Amino acid sequence: MINFTVGPVQMDEETRKMGMDQIPYFRTPEFSEIMKENEKLLCKFFDAPQDSRVIFMTGSGTASMEGGILNFFTPSDKLLVVNGGSFGHRLVELCQIHEIPFTEIKLEYGKALTKEILSEYENSGYTGMALQLCETSTGVLYDMNLVGDFCNRNGCFLFVDAVSGFLADKISMKTMHINAAITGSQKALALPPSMSFTVMDAEAQKRCYNNKVKSMYFNYADYLKNGERGQTPFTPAVGTLLMLNEKLRRIETNGGIEAMNKAAAERAQYFRSKISQLPFKLFTDKDSTSNCVTALMPTTPGVNAHKIFEIIKDEYGIWICPNGGDMAEKVFRVGHIGSITNEEIDKLVQVFEDLAKRKLI
Amino acid sequence: MINFTVGPVQMDEETRKMGMDQIPYFRTPEFSEIMKENEKLLCKFFDAPQDSRVIFMTGSGTASMEGGILNFFTPSDKLLVVNGGSFGHRLVELCQIHEIPFTEIKLEYGKALTKEILSEYENSGYTGMALQLCETSTGVLYDMNLVGDFCNRNGCFLFVDAVSGFLADKISMKTMHINAAITGSQKALALPPSMSFTVMDAEAQKRCYNNKVKSMYFNYADYLKNGERGQTPFTPAVGTLLMLNEKLRRIETNGGIEAMNKAAAERAQYFRSKISQLPFKLFTDKDSTSNCVTALMPTTPGVNAHKIFEIIKDEYGIWICPNGGDMAEKVFRVGHIGSITNEEIDKLVQVFEDLAKRKLI
Repeated sequence: MINFTVGPVQMDEETRKMGMDQIPYFRTPEFSEIMKENEKLLCKFFDAPQDSRVIFMTGSGTASMEGGILNFFTPSDKLLVVNGGSFGHRLVELCQIHEIPFTEIKLEYGKALTKEILSEYENSGYTGMALQLCETSTGVLYDMNLVGDFCNRNGCFLFVDAVSGFLADKISMKTMHINAAITGSQKALALPPSMSFTVMDAEAQKRCYNNKVKSMYFNYADYLKNGERGQTPFTPAVGTLLMLNEKLRRIETNGGIEAMNKAAAERAQYFRSKISQLPFKLFTDKDSTSNCVTALMPTTPGVNAHKIFEIIKDEYGIWICPNGGDMAEKVFRVGHIGSITNEEIDKLVQVFEDLAKRKLI
Repeated sequence: MINFTVGPVQMDEETRKMGMDQIPYFRTPEFSEIMKENEKLLCKFFDAPQDSRVIFMTGSGTASMEGGILNFFTPSDKLLVVNGGSFGHRLVELCQIHEIPFTEIKLEYGKALTKEILSEYENSGYTGMALQLCETSTGVLYDMNLVGDFCNRNGCFLFVDAVSGFLADKISMKTMHINAAITGSQKALALPPSMSFTVMDAEAQKRCYNNKVKSMYFNYADYLKNGERGQTPFTPAVGTLLMLNEKLRRIETNGGIEAMNKAAAERAQYFRSKISQLPFKLFTDKDSTSNCVTALMPTTPGVNAHKIFEIIKDEYGIWICPNGGDMAEKVFRVGHIGSITNEEIDKLVQVFEDLAKRKLI
């Protein structure tokens, strides 16, 4: 099967080989050293300010979304939450569950967050903001310079879910005034799903230490303390963390974050250039597309997006990425993260062309 | 390195080979079917009553300990919690964090929970009880028939942390009156760390549905609902779940749970018979030893248990399992779970003999 979903994605050969290895005992100085390097390189690739730290959470991206909302904010905060798709909606639900006061900026799905929309919330006493870098369900990349300037101007703590966006789209905690950002192992890092990571600046760490969190598993102060000696409070997915180390070092050797961003942009561009003649419409605002995924709407009346996913899976041995909820029958997605070649993209385009011939799209 | 820790443990060849495989997209009927089989086989191996269900949590064993305390109990409960080591202590802390009223039965570490101790709590209005099957930090196996009868007689909901004990020690939810039990991927299942599993009877499920949990990631009602179609609410460690399926099927083919229990008992016995001449004392009550681990105290004055761990790691390429906290300098452990051969045990015994010759133990 060729995998064009947005996670788990296709792993590199180097990562796969490590999957064969026995997993070492981890309460050792040897493993701590690897974790320290993981922390250093993640900080570097997020362009995090000095004294930033990383929390290594065994859990899906949602675990780190919830952990962030729980540790960075309190009921004394007043948040702006951008809901432009399922993952933005999840941030809204997390604020509701944890009783963090918030205002929801509900965008039409597929649309950008504009200066005009945001200007409504200037000087209104907001203390924090939470949103995705890339809203994976719609393929929208938010203008993080716009958001960062807003937060900086308004004294808002900025928490960014870059689970899918990291490595594919540009992110700089420094220039975008981001206090904390998360990513996941099974996205552009192309590791097995199991871990998510939170990079925090000094202010974010301070909030973790000051906040009384009603959870053991999500007690970030405990993770920060254990992290000082390169450890986690509980047994992490050790194998994935070793693969992370190999991957981060490889990125560093091969041109760093700029090279990763560039490759992702080229791959997304290559795919998009190939499908212009097909009966699909870009679901995402043209100037706000993320490099990590292309969201498409079939334009032929009666064609069901989820059915296309099923046919391609069952008849061609390829996974594209279906959507959930309201968008399930209207939108499907093609991911550009992980180890994907142009030849594989060509193959997918041929499948679409074949479906067109068969009058199935 | 040979690994005698209690997790991550040495994986079987069959599991390791699967580590090379690309990880499939999982929102498919194909993956759901595998998950349904995982659920069925875990219920079978826990000897769970009909209509039991399983929750697949991406996270360490502690995630499922916390999830259990959070979902099965409320501040209206009155719990008995057995604290016989670090993991029992963790249950105590979880009750404190989540404001579940409880009485702590604090055992001398290494000692059994006796009928006499338990009899003190008869007819005292307890609604639940939480404890380990095997307290991994001390190697004590609790008498679960005694506990189960107590809970049955007193109308207590019984929540058992069998993270390390499952497969190594006998557990039957039916005959031991257990309502919910957990285990982890990196223990006797010998898979990579990343997942933990909760088997629940009908009463446990009812509690999850009735309880209003202040968490998205630990909302078990949501896991139960998604599980009906063989899915999880959030991206799980898909690779580990596929390995779980292979392992459970292999156990089923090779004599089932009885054969696993027997092999674990034989391995523990083999190790213990070989060390009788060495300057170690069993830390655990002789009639209450778990098959999953042997906890030992050096008897030679001045010998530091943690130092033994370090020497064996650095000079002999073997990991035994150090203890944490108060026990760190007094107790070390040798695990018997995972893919360990008698030849490897012989090698470890030779190392101990060599240390004795070198007057280091």
